[in-house]
Amino acid sequence: MLNVVSFDEAIRITKNEFSFFDPGTEILSITECTGRVTAKDIVSRENIPPFDRSTVDGYAVLSSDTFGASEGIPSMLSVKGEILMGEEAKGFIRSGECIKISTGGMLPAGADSVVMVEYTEKMIDETCLIFKAVSPFQNVTKAGDDVKTGQKIISKGTLLTSKHVGILCALGINEVECVRKIKVGIISSGDEIVPVQKDIPFGKIRDINSHFLSALMKEKGCDALEYGIVKDNIDELYDTLQKAADECDVIMISGGSSAGNKDMTCDVIEKNGKVYYHGIAVKPGKPTIFGKLNNKAVFGLPGHPAAAYLIAKTVVTELIRFFSGETGKDFTLTAEITESISSNHGREELVPVIFENGKAQPLFFKSGLVSLLSTADGYIIVPRNKEGLLKNETVTVHLF
Amino acid sequence: MLNVVSFDEAIRITKNEFSFFDPGTEILSITECTGRVTAKDIVSRENIPPFDRSTVDGYAVLSSDTFGASEGIPSMLSVKGEILMGEEAKGFIRSGECIKISTGGMLPAGADSVVMVEYTEKMIDETCLIFKAVSPFQNVTKAGDDVKTGQKIISKGTLLTSKHVGILCALGINEVECVRKIKVGIISSGDEIVPVQKDIPFGKIRDINSHFLSALMKEKGCDALEYGIVKDNIDELYDTLQKAADECDVIMISGGSSAGNKDMTCDVIEKNGKVYYHGIAVKPGKPTIFGKLNNKAVFGLPGHPAAAYLIAKTVVTELIRFFSGETGKDFTLTAEITESISSNHGREELVPVIFENGKAQPLFFKSGLVSLLSTADGYIIVPRNKEGLLKNETVTVHLF
Repeated sequence: MLNVVSFDEAIRITKNEFSFFDPGTEILSITECTGRVTAKDIVSRENIPPFDRSTVDGYAVLSSDTFGASEGIPSMLSVKGEILMGEEAKGFIRSGECIKISTGGMLPAGADSVVMVEYTEKMIDETCLIFKAVSPFQNVTKAGDDVKTGQKIISKGTLLTSKHVGILCALGINEVECVRKIKVGIISSGDEIVPVQKDIPFGKIRDINSHFLSALMKEKGCDALEYGIVKDNIDELYDTLQKAADECDVIMISGGSSAGNKDMTCDVIEKNGKVYYHGIAVKPGKPTIFGKLNNKAVFGLPGHPAAAYLIAKTVVTELIRFFSGETGKDFTLTAEITESISSNHGREELVPVIFENGKAQPLFFKSGLVSLLSTADGYIIVPRNKEGLLKNETVTVHLF
Repeated sequence: MLNVVSFDEAIRITKNEFSFFDPGTEILSITECTGRVTAKDIVSRENIPPFDRSTVDGYAVLSSDTFGASEGIPSMLSVKGEILMGEEAKGFIRSGECIKISTGGMLPAGADSVVMVEYTEKMIDETCLIFKAVSPFQNVTKAGDDVKTGQKIISKGTLLTSKHVGILCALGINEVECVRKIKVGIISSGDEIVPVQKDIPFGKIRDINSHFLSALMKEKGCDALEYGIVKDNIDELYDTLQKAADECDVIMISGGSSAGNKDMTCDVIEKNGKVYYHGIAVKPGKPTIFGKLNNKAVFGLPGHPAAAYLIAKTVVTELIRFFSGETGKDFTLTAEITESISSNHGREELVPVIFENGKAQPLFFKSGLVSLLSTADGYIIVPRNKEGLLKNETVTVHLF
């Protein structure tokens, strides 16, 4: 009955079964687009800068007119006027001519470079002495040096952050087509679960997972829909799951700790759908279920909050990144661990760590610890083909 | 007239001048508190677990009754009933007695340990044979093992994220006192600045900085208030700045690129306040102004978007963290640089980098590049006492 898969297989199967999924897109303004994933490559409609531009105050010249110029033997050019910054250069120059230009000014037709004002002397008769030669395009930023028309500036699948807003504004792009937010439904199940409140009856447990998982999904850029607490009743769970499947793309059911509860999640999925795996060879998080109902992804997560959080952070998040097509880098830290970790051969282990002074200090799960994750900075993965990690071994830390 | 300070001095002066500032606090529900900074230590009102709890199915016993028990010579105890998970243990045991208990069940008074069911045999006459000794508290999680009543679970100044939500829910804490959001006003100034739109008149520049800085401040957990574009008119700038100072805690004015513009920012601050520095020995970002008006912090930022962004990301963000009392770790990556960087002695340099395959590739500012930041993953700081960095030197990468 149980179909246990490895951690890597779980992620592969999860994506594979939803390769058909397309969340659709929406157009967002520049003030709404951060935290969202681009649906298409963004291409520039113009050059930055839009024209050849002087980077100094001086005289726009043909560089060939200055070749050989020196303090002793200056070139002598006739001044054809002046171009200010922000003014269109309507004039042009021929050999033997120059135009006065300010920093940021548009290079006039005919000119290919600018002599800094320090190396010139304007005479009373509107001629100008040039005391230093310039090479072609010296002291000039060419049109399109920064961005060229047609250039891809942001790739499809980019998670937009504030750092992208500058270039979008610079190019006059005030709307961006982004992937629709992935909708994640969250169901808590179990007769013993009660809402978060100060005083609870003996033997009852507060509903940790609804808010815990909802906060995580919001951080991942999803819409999180909470469906509350469902009793250990197969019809009630089935109805709630059907409703969630109508409204969401992904559903997470976090069950109570009883074994009967777990089976119920499988049963409700299989009533109208299919279960692909029931158990992942990973610690913690073994009793994870994954299935499909009405073409929506359904996860049955472990009841233990830390285990549910870590599986949501890894397997579920991988599916959500896959859905939104996000291709960004996942920044990780490299560190030595401060203590040895023993681990079971044949399964992955997710170990929360504190990152301090460049070292990773592993935190060990004892039965039922819920305070642990709040103090961790991230987690490391002990590979399934290792029996543990030695003190001072170098590990990759995935930050929370 | 110019009062140029070092990068470190700038940060020190900025905080020092606002040591009096208190943003106040507000009470937020568990679903609103992520992304916010705690205003007080959060202390547990209860134990987790709330009572001594069995971690196995078996018999609750006095460990001393089992000492010496073996397959050959079992201890014989009389069974005094059963305790189920979620049920209050009303009974108690004396020496010679035991109570059947399920995983998660509450240890009855008198018992100090649990013998796993595998090492027991219940006889027809309500006696039970114990074939293996247990030590005190074996197979028991003690009350408060995870969290104790009165224990500090989250410190004042913690930026709350999803990882903290679990422990708050577990303890029934559904409201948290957080620091009020810091309000940052953003003003663009310059006759040449126009709103972000597709087509703009020749010589005009789109207002990059309003949206760019606003997006950054929102990422830093602030309320960003945009005051639009102000012409190069000292009265108009003064009126807008006064309005922003009434409504915000921090104001950023990003000027046009003209020199006259910069002086105007100083003038309007000094009309009713004080300028503490005018220039930071840092590249880029030298023409940064900092002052106080109506007891609010006012920054005059460079007109160049990348420079304005980097100063906002460093100096302004440091002030905002100081205001909210945030004490969290600032995660940085350590990497070798792929190219040498030459730098001027006597000033800090902020160099954007791409982080790829564990290496940091520096991106060099050319005049006016605005596309550069969007491709960078973060930045490194070349210290003021170094004339540059050598290829393969190890650097600290601050992520964007």
